[in-house]
Amino acid sequence: MSVKKVNKTKIIEPKILKGFRDSLPNQEIPKRKIINKLERLFTTHGFVAIDTPALEYTEVLLGKGGGETDKQIFHFEDNGGREVALRFDLTVPFARFLAAHYNELALPFKRYHINKVWRGEKPQKGRFREFYQCDFDIVGADNAEADFEILSMMNTSFNKLGINNYTFCVAHRGLFNAFLTHFEVIDDSVEILRIVDKLRKIGEEEVKKQLIDVTKSEEKANAILSYITKLDNEGFLETLDRLSKLAGGEEEHTTRMKDIYNYLVSEGIEKHFTFDSSITRGLDYYTGIVYETFLDDLPSFGSVCSGGRYNNLASLYTKQELPGVGSSIGLDRLLSALEELDNSVIGKSSYSDVVIFNEDNTTYAYGNKIATALREEDLRVDHYLLKKKLNQQFKYAETNQIPFGIIIKDYDEAHHTFSLKNLNTRESFESININEAAKLIKQGL
Amino acid sequence: MSVKKVNKTKIIEPKILKGFRDSLPNQEIPKRKIINKLERLFTTHGFVAIDTPALEYTEVLLGKGGGETDKQIFHFEDNGGREVALRFDLTVPFARFLAAHYNELALPFKRYHINKVWRGEKPQKGRFREFYQCDFDIVGADNAEADFEILSMMNTSFNKLGINNYTFCVAHRGLFNAFLTHFEVIDDSVEILRIVDKLRKIGEEEVKKQLIDVTKSEEKANAILSYITKLDNEGFLETLDRLSKLAGGEEEHTTRMKDIYNYLVSEGIEKHFTFDSSITRGLDYYTGIVYETFLDDLPSFGSVCSGGRYNNLASLYTKQELPGVGSSIGLDRLLSALEELDNSVIGKSSYSDVVIFNEDNTTYAYGNKIATALREEDLRVDHYLLKKKLNQQFKYAETNQIPFGIIIKDYDEAHHTFSLKNLNTRESFESININEAAKLIKQGL
Repeated sequence: MSVKKVNKTKIIEPKILKGFRDSLPNQEIPKRKIINKLERLFTTHGFVAIDTPALEYTEVLLGKGGGETDKQIFHFEDNGGREVALRFDLTVPFARFLAAHYNELALPFKRYHINKVWRGEKPQKGRFREFYQCDFDIVGADNAEADFEILSMMNTSFNKLGINNYTFCVAHRGLFNAFLTHFEVIDDSVEILRIVDKLRKIGEEEVKKQLIDVTKSEEKANAILSYITKLDNEGFLETLDRLSKLAGGEEEHTTRMKDIYNYLVSEGIEKHFTFDSSITRGLDYYTGIVYETFLDDLPSFGSVCSGGRYNNLASLYTKQELPGVGSSIGLDRLLSALEELDNSVIGKSSYSDVVIFNEDNTTYAYGNKIATALREEDLRVDHYLLKKKLNQQFKYAETNQIPFGIIIKDYDEAHHTFSLKNLNTRESFESININEAAKLIKQGL
Repeated sequence: MSVKKVNKTKIIEPKILKGFRDSLPNQEIPKRKIINKLERLFTTHGFVAIDTPALEYTEVLLGKGGGETDKQIFHFEDNGGREVALRFDLTVPFARFLAAHYNELALPFKRYHINKVWRGEKPQKGRFREFYQCDFDIVGADNAEADFEILSMMNTSFNKLGINNYTFCVAHRGLFNAFLTHFEVIDDSVEILRIVDKLRKIGEEEVKKQLIDVTKSEEKANAILSYITKLDNEGFLETLDRLSKLAGGEEEHTTRMKDIYNYLVSEGIEKHFTFDSSITRGLDYYTGIVYETFLDDLPSFGSVCSGGRYNNLASLYTKQELPGVGSSIGLDRLLSALEELDNSVIGKSSYSDVVIFNEDNTTYAYGNKIATALREEDLRVDHYLLKKKLNQQFKYAETNQIPFGIIIKDYDEAHHTFSLKNLNTRESFESININEAAKLIKQGL
């Protein structure tokens, strides 16, 4: 395939689609940093990478045979007449993947998946039609240990990304369902879940109004409201106790939540977790613990990491029972948040740690030797490629946020020395060697 | 968006599209290893990451206003009535990106881009409709230093991936064009490039036949054949000299190639490079040096890394001159090759370095502490999540190719010891501590 030559005078406008964007280095460098940190974290915890096609059969992604297709999906008929669509999340493809491959995998199966998804939503601030998701799940273990491991991974992720102030709001869908059954609110429970889920957005009064609409009972609406309302100064286990009683002395889910909490205490991370019974996640496939994550310093930002336990996710594609628990980080949203928080881990999007200047191509081969030696010290080294005046090269370094420069104009090849310049402080270090330079650069980063 | 509930008895077949595939951990783990190694290499050489949308306007990707659309492209009309297509390479989007953003960038601009592309080609062995490409380019420097830097990066890439036997076949399109002009073969030069490019595939005789068809001259066909035929025992500079003479004593491109070669010698990597004047790359946007890469141990595998210099790539989208040089690695093809070569760097696709067994959940919290400590030693540690018999857990470790296991059944929490088992040799190490375990595991990996 090749670019077709067109009439030389006709320039095609280099426009991109609404809701899509180029990722320039100052966005892509921090994003790659986050992805690499998370990937390192997952692999050290026994989670393994998978990938699935960006394009799948529409009926497989939407879980239905035909008829009306969701407008939020990019879908089309391919050249072979197949109805195909771009994946809109990493959860549905994972369910399909499990149904197709569970025989080839040893359970419990712990996977992570970091890649793009596409949605035809109306673009708005912070919402794009193409974005990265980062999912991690454990399938084949329905116990407190698996639930805890996902929560612990979430906590470690936030630590590794240098985020200090965050709250994991957790609840239990099984317990909530037991409560609804106990109160004989059995119809339209999905509708109730979705109303409750909006508590943060629309407030108590509106939630109550909508609950009355659905339950046709002010008493039931009040009962639900009292279940989902957080009490001040109530600890995790106290809330659990109270909700358990409201659910008629429910035992199974209550015990599970107690076990999970004990593991959090044993790991010393319980302070980041709060029981928030208004969390339901809206989606009907959740059956156990559910959670959302809020950044304490950006309270209105919304959840940046959510998920829960689902015991029947793959049931659309297989009769095999595959209970799972998992979590999903919206990477692009998290990146925006980290930028707003001036996060130190993603830090500056400097292109390199040091640039070797090049006023005279006769020093180019020698400069390459310096570059190679500094790269072996794990430094990111750029070598300027044009014969230009030094002030133009300084400008290049400034635009690319490179903090150090090496000048080898009057170099002494016999002694292998050169001078190093801290481009921020303007400090110069004359006639130094590789080891000295590496040390100074590392100190200054 | 949520998965719609369907009639419980109807199972949707978890099928995927022809030419697409799931990437299971035993494929995805080595692929991630390759990507991470290359990414580390690029960033230490001053190359920065960018990304572009998977979906673009069809006319932007195909470089034309309308009419017949290439059948190899996945294209469709989106919900907003726009003609859109999935990118089929990373070169065209880069040209569009440069035209849109060159004002925001400091030149020379060195970028890498590793991501998926899609083509509707007929699927066949080793050819898929979705695959990863890895491109790296330098834009804004038309000199031997930039050409050399790309060649040097290619060489370092192969080193870092543990590939020892490879040959970079290089040629110069400018020199070839000078030769054609000198021989008054000026019409249909693109057609001639494509015929010459097939020499490896179709052989000398068929190339000659096709060249006669196009040039209408056996003399010219013979001249071209003598230009593109490699002579035994002829060194790089000798070939260059001979070709330069065939091109009527051409100077500019000859000097460039000499300078590049001198840098290769100065870096001590010239033995991997051979002048192969039959390399043309077929595409009409190349203007200078061109290259393909062959694995000496898989001679029929075809090129795994190709590219060249183009001085007008972005001219479809801007009047700004943006000379560039770059290279593209077909990651999925390279991965297949490395698997065939039993490459040591991608190595085994083990899920973890060690698994902590779990016969009894009462040791789970203690096991977590061991896991955390070993992870701080940079080890990949899995913690088995179910209460199962040890032989079933051994089986899990075997399927996931995990070489070490830790047993804490009879653990002594006061002394923090446990036993370690080498699952390949069946050797056991009793009552050891974290440091001892970390050392033994690292030795055994």
